[in-house]
Amino acid sequence: MQELSRTETYSLTVLSGACLAVLVNAWKSDGEPLFASIAISGIGFAFTYCLVRWTGDVFIKRGYKGRDLSKKNPVEIPEAMGLVCALVYLLAVVNFLPFAFKRDIVEITSGAGNKDRVLEAQHIETGRFLHRFPLEKLASYGFAYGTLASVTILGILDDSFDMRWRHKFFIPAFAALPMLALYFVDFGVTHVVVPAPLRKYVGGELIDLGGLYYLYMAAISIFCPNCINILAGVNGIEVGQSIVIALLIALNDVLYLLPTIHQPHPAADSHLFSLYLLLPFIGVSLALLKHNWFPAKVFVGDTYCYFAGMVFAVVGILGHFSKTLLLLFIPQIFNFVYSAPQLFAIVPCPRHRLPRFNARTGLLEPSVATFAQEKPLRPIVGEVLKLLHKMKLLRVQVDPNGRVTETTNFTILNLWLVWRGPLREDRLAVEILVMQAIVGLLGLWVRHSLALLLFTADNRF
Amino acid sequence: MQELSRTETYSLTVLSGACLAVLVNAWKSDGEPLFASIAISGIGFAFTYCLVRWTGDVFIKRGYKGRDLSKKNPVEIPEAMGLVCALVYLLAVVNFLPFAFKRDIVEITSGAGNKDRVLEAQHIETGRFLHRFPLEKLASYGFAYGTLASVTILGILDDSFDMRWRHKFFIPAFAALPMLALYFVDFGVTHVVVPAPLRKYVGGELIDLGGLYYLYMAAISIFCPNCINILAGVNGIEVGQSIVIALLIALNDVLYLLPTIHQPHPAADSHLFSLYLLLPFIGVSLALLKHNWFPAKVFVGDTYCYFAGMVFAVVGILGHFSKTLLLLFIPQIFNFVYSAPQLFAIVPCPRHRLPRFNARTGLLEPSVATFAQEKPLRPIVGEVLKLLHKMKLLRVQVDPNGRVTETTNFTILNLWLVWRGPLREDRLAVEILVMQAIVGLLGLWVRHSLALLLFTADNRF
Repeated sequence: MQELSRTETYSLTVLSGACLAVLVNAWKSDGEPLFASIAISGIGFAFTYCLVRWTGDVFIKRGYKGRDLSKKNPVEIPEAMGLVCALVYLLAVVNFLPFAFKRDIVEITSGAGNKDRVLEAQHIETGRFLHRFPLEKLASYGFAYGTLASVTILGILDDSFDMRWRHKFFIPAFAALPMLALYFVDFGVTHVVVPAPLRKYVGGELIDLGGLYYLYMAAISIFCPNCINILAGVNGIEVGQSIVIALLIALNDVLYLLPTIHQPHPAADSHLFSLYLLLPFIGVSLALLKHNWFPAKVFVGDTYCYFAGMVFAVVGILGHFSKTLLLLFIPQIFNFVYSAPQLFAIVPCPRHRLPRFNARTGLLEPSVATFAQEKPLRPIVGEVLKLLHKMKLLRVQVDPNGRVTETTNFTILNLWLVWRGPLREDRLAVEILVMQAIVGLLGLWVRHSLALLLFTADNRF
Repeated sequence: MQELSRTETYSLTVLSGACLAVLVNAWKSDGEPLFASIAISGIGFAFTYCLVRWTGDVFIKRGYKGRDLSKKNPVEIPEAMGLVCALVYLLAVVNFLPFAFKRDIVEITSGAGNKDRVLEAQHIETGRFLHRFPLEKLASYGFAYGTLASVTILGILDDSFDMRWRHKFFIPAFAALPMLALYFVDFGVTHVVVPAPLRKYVGGELIDLGGLYYLYMAAISIFCPNCINILAGVNGIEVGQSIVIALLIALNDVLYLLPTIHQPHPAADSHLFSLYLLLPFIGVSLALLKHNWFPAKVFVGDTYCYFAGMVFAVVGILGHFSKTLLLLFIPQIFNFVYSAPQLFAIVPCPRHRLPRFNARTGLLEPSVATFAQEKPLRPIVGEVLKLLHKMKLLRVQVDPNGRVTETTNFTILNLWLVWRGPLREDRLAVEILVMQAIVGLLGLWVRHSLALLLFTADNRF
């Protein structure tokens, strides 16, 4: 068991103490739940930080371990530590609930007179449900929790049982079922607003997608977790990209909650819901990132990728901004599309596609797939690869006969290394994350300023 | 991978087909959700049956395996198969939701006119939550699901990481947090009805237990899973006792739903909720029991015990009949109290307390704890043991000096063998289950007939 250093113990204690004070104060004063959420996220950070450190050996002992191939002397480090994140996160969300609803409870109970008391007595004797509270918000939390707990179970199973890729791919859809059931029962709204230029073809402002809408939501739930899982292979990149996305969504949420826009904004509740789910996520992820950043002390496992992706799917779907959500996944979408030729075996795909570590320079270089003499590429595929090479979207090697003998692997990380030349692992991670943040900010800008061209109104105003 | 026999395949296909037909019919006719629940439970049975058979080898490969010590030639069989149960169960509950609420949805949408449509359009554009449905029941399902998913996660962790007893004991309390949070936010009722003879002391019909009530609920959540985990060690006993309890609770639920009593009974909703959660539980458990019954092909693991106990805690607490629930746990409560001297180390406790297998006779005999010469029992403890021996609540061996040198282990299974003599493993399991069923039925009879003496009314009428 690795101990915390004295500085770490001191900082974490101070942080937890401050957060606890905020919590106690929020409870006493029936204050803004947002402060409670921030405080709980801080405690979640401290708790995850300690647990990741303390439980590493237990994970290794039970076989959850791996070697980091991009290091000179790879040692065994714990794998699947995202599980710790997910558990602390679930605990944080549950403990936040009383704070989220404290005000409503106070409001209701303070208005209760003697008559209610008598009614209450009757109800207790007869065992009837006693609803004193508007439950519409609560159900969303319950099913969000259920969905995230489910994806955690499936993540553990994946990390434990080494599932096949084609089985893994659909795992998140199962976990998303509680959320889809809630959507079906509660909202049941499968209409979408049609962009203005298309309205004359569709014949109205709204189009009912019916069952297609559920397929769309299932697709989101499958896509978000898997695309984070695919953009991986460098220390800190899984957690880092998740934190960037979470921050971008949170920024978008804040845009709806600013005092400068007309309040209460009709979408304010959805965006508060999103924020309350994202803050603790950011808290636990930062603690994991500290241990997963170059040089990594722990791996995060598929558990983390599924869990993180599902957090985004949940807030996007239950918060009704799944299309905006996709704007923040542009690098992941690019990576997925770019990977497709290898994922779908049009171009041979080696078992590992992470960048190649050059032990001499200590830098990462693009990894390659080579095509054996006996099994050459189909000529048409070869020509396309050469074209992509000219467009600087690949780097291929050509033999004297003009045949493609090898190509860099089809991932955004390798492509970045093609463009930028060999980089140290942490440098590569930082550059990708910065690129991702810039693309995301642009996406949000497009969403809120250009939306006016396609729709008749931006819903922020 | 063990294949299903031809008969099994045939029966399961017929069963699934019939259940599917019922489901389709229930959906088309907006029929009674109870039929849908039964049909889904049937499909859950078939699904669990197949999955337990098919995934056994995978579990063994990943190290979830054990040897059955009560067999002549113990071979390695899969452990922790309760996980399969839990997963299928969660899937079944989610898929039941649309059926549970179909009627309400139809009712609401059929009443919606053009005005609503316009309102809807506005709401979609502004991204507001669109609640078309009374959510008070839905939240209970969401949090019940969350609680059961959580206990499944913790069960897997327990089975994977071999936790210490004193840590394990409190695991269920964590899993119960979502349920307690729901109770806090939604009901918040911490009053209990005071039995009539005590009312003059307390000064009213109701007493507010406040925080104590949450402790009480946490205690229920800790107790139910653990006491099933403790009454274990014989093929089929964990699953068998859970099925008996589930059937008894379901019987109690039906008492509130009979057409002979005034309908709609105020508690009918709670008891329907309970029934909807219990039926699929019975379905998946029966499939597991088939494989776990003597001679066991699989072990169920702590996952199953926690999961089963938590199902009972959830229906008892969210259905508001936690006190009645305890009446159905009398054998488990007895076993827990009876075990206490060993659990709390007043009497030395060997690592395993399951009955001893006599390979010559093929029968089970009471297992014993022996006390070494160097570490004798304290004299007072010895005297108490001798007294219990006289009361036929133990069997002890005494040396010529009158010192107790060994005692049968303090579990109800060993006690039963003291009373009944050596028994074959399945015979012991059957006798215990029959005893449990009789005690449970008596408990229910007391609950509904004698309640009138203590309270002013039985809430069934």
